[in-house]
Amino acid sequence: MNGIRWIASYPKSGSTWLRCMLAAYTTGRAPQLWSDVHAESPELEAMLRFGDLPPLRPSEPVLVKTHFKADVPLLRPFRDGTAKALHLVRNPRDVLLNAMRLARIPRDDTERGRAFARDFITSKGLGLRSGPGGSPGYGTWPDNVRSWTESPGELFPHADVLTVRYEDLRADPVTRFSEVVEFLDLGRPVDGENIRHAVDSATPGRMRELAERSDRQGDGKKRPIHLGDRTEHDERMRTGGSDAEKPSFLGDGKDGQSLAFLGEDIESAYQELVHGDSGFAHYAKQYEYAG
Amino acid sequence: MNGIRWIASYPKSGSTWLRCMLAAYTTGRAPQLWSDVHAESPELEAMLRFGDLPPLRPSEPVLVKTHFKADVPLLRPFRDGTAKALHLVRNPRDVLLNAMRLARIPRDDTERGRAFARDFITSKGLGLRSGPGGSPGYGTWPDNVRSWTESPGELFPHADVLTVRYEDLRADPVTRFSEVVEFLDLGRPVDGENIRHAVDSATPGRMRELAERSDRQGDGKKRPIHLGDRTEHDERMRTGGSDAEKPSFLGDGKDGQSLAFLGEDIESAYQELVHGDSGFAHYAKQYEYAG
Repeated sequence: MNGIRWIASYPKSGSTWLRCMLAAYTTGRAPQLWSDVHAESPELEAMLRFGDLPPLRPSEPVLVKTHFKADVPLLRPFRDGTAKALHLVRNPRDVLLNAMRLARIPRDDTERGRAFARDFITSKGLGLRSGPGGSPGYGTWPDNVRSWTESPGELFPHADVLTVRYEDLRADPVTRFSEVVEFLDLGRPVDGENIRHAVDSATPGRMRELAERSDRQGDGKKRPIHLGDRTEHDERMRTGGSDAEKPSFLGDGKDGQSLAFLGEDIESAYQELVHGDSGFAHYAKQYEYAG
Repeated sequence: MNGIRWIASYPKSGSTWLRCMLAAYTTGRAPQLWSDVHAESPELEAMLRFGDLPPLRPSEPVLVKTHFKADVPLLRPFRDGTAKALHLVRNPRDVLLNAMRLARIPRDDTERGRAFARDFITSKGLGLRSGPGGSPGYGTWPDNVRSWTESPGELFPHADVLTVRYEDLRADPVTRFSEVVEFLDLGRPVDGENIRHAVDSATPGRMRELAERSDRQGDGKKRPIHLGDRTEHDERMRTGGSDAEKPSFLGDGKDGQSLAFLGEDIESAYQELVHGDSGFAHYAKQYEYAG
């Protein structure tokens, strides 16, 4: 069955790991650089920065990653061409801590860490910023989850949707990744040997090697191009070529981490959020993240 | 006549000034913040970051700014809905120097300035970076100019195109801006009083006030949201809230500046570029930028 397969998730939910396994599975080779990963499942947001767009009615299965909510106007042209949505969901505690690390906030910089965590709790996700189109395209954590779990039937009438918990994928990657590949229906019967090879190709150690190799070869995971935003090039020039400050894109893969190291009040504020009656609490309970 | 009116230009070519005048003209009020400018002529690239998209078949005149080349895949859905393309072109010398300033390279940091200029000359525009979609969406300077001047007839069969030189707009803003407004056909007869008011609303002094007011109120011209790129928020945290390093988005509006302050070899390399037989030289000659 032809059509777009969205790999949809809130930012910092582990989609890079999943895409590495997918790249290994579809090509039969462990990806060596980020560009190998992009080649198999390009990121919609990165394509847009280059003026590019996935095919509206693909004549083959096409994997595309996105962090956008399912209901943003930009996805409307893909209404009929969408065949599948693989929705990856992750404990928001780890989303928050992953995002903090990427923002270059060391764990012992409690002041900045507390401000970042407060912002996450208040805005129910990453970033309060609004802009020309209203809120950021990925929205709050509950809005993002709701969009991919409750409305795809209306938004993408020909699409099947599968939600996978990152934690379940971690606990038994061979079984869960096999289900993911079967769901995505990539035009070949699922091959158990390839599944195991794909899982082995994307261990934390292999992914660290991939990240380091890509850095050395200037093959950036993120290739910012907008003037006005800092570019890697500017950054390298600014720091005199040192990459010392460069944040690792890869998370540590830990699950359900406490926020108490930022202060008991932060952990309490988070507990209130997941035990209240907000949309955040609703989805946290549904996916067993309310602990 | 309904439809999209693209305000198309290579980055750093003065489109912000033009959009300020347009905002003053269409609302009858001098814009006070960047958001007032965005409201009248949103930037396509910013909309995309928020998952937003201009209407494909607008039921009224809609102004949208873009730096993309006319022939990027992303603009294909706008084929039938595009009514006009106002193409602003500027001396590439000033494009280069504007971009250098935005990259926070002081004029006396000759080493970084030379590297930046060399990169511009070699890549025939801003940035050699390539990515998932190939080259950046704005392309080289000649590719961008070519796309908006030679192919719009095929790309946007219902569109009129007008190219305006930034330098001509600067030399006689009332006359030239009046022609621009007439061309854009915004649904009202052109009003000379409003034209003069719009020009007066976007003097360098008024634009500096607008920029400073926007900064104070946290109303950023650029609102980066992508994780992995630095955000203004991160930046403010990193610098302890100081804006000292912040580059001014506004240029100094100078025309045809020499590059000799970066070394005679840089000026010579640029001269070779504009007097050779490349596409760059072709368009530099055509628009009288070969001096």
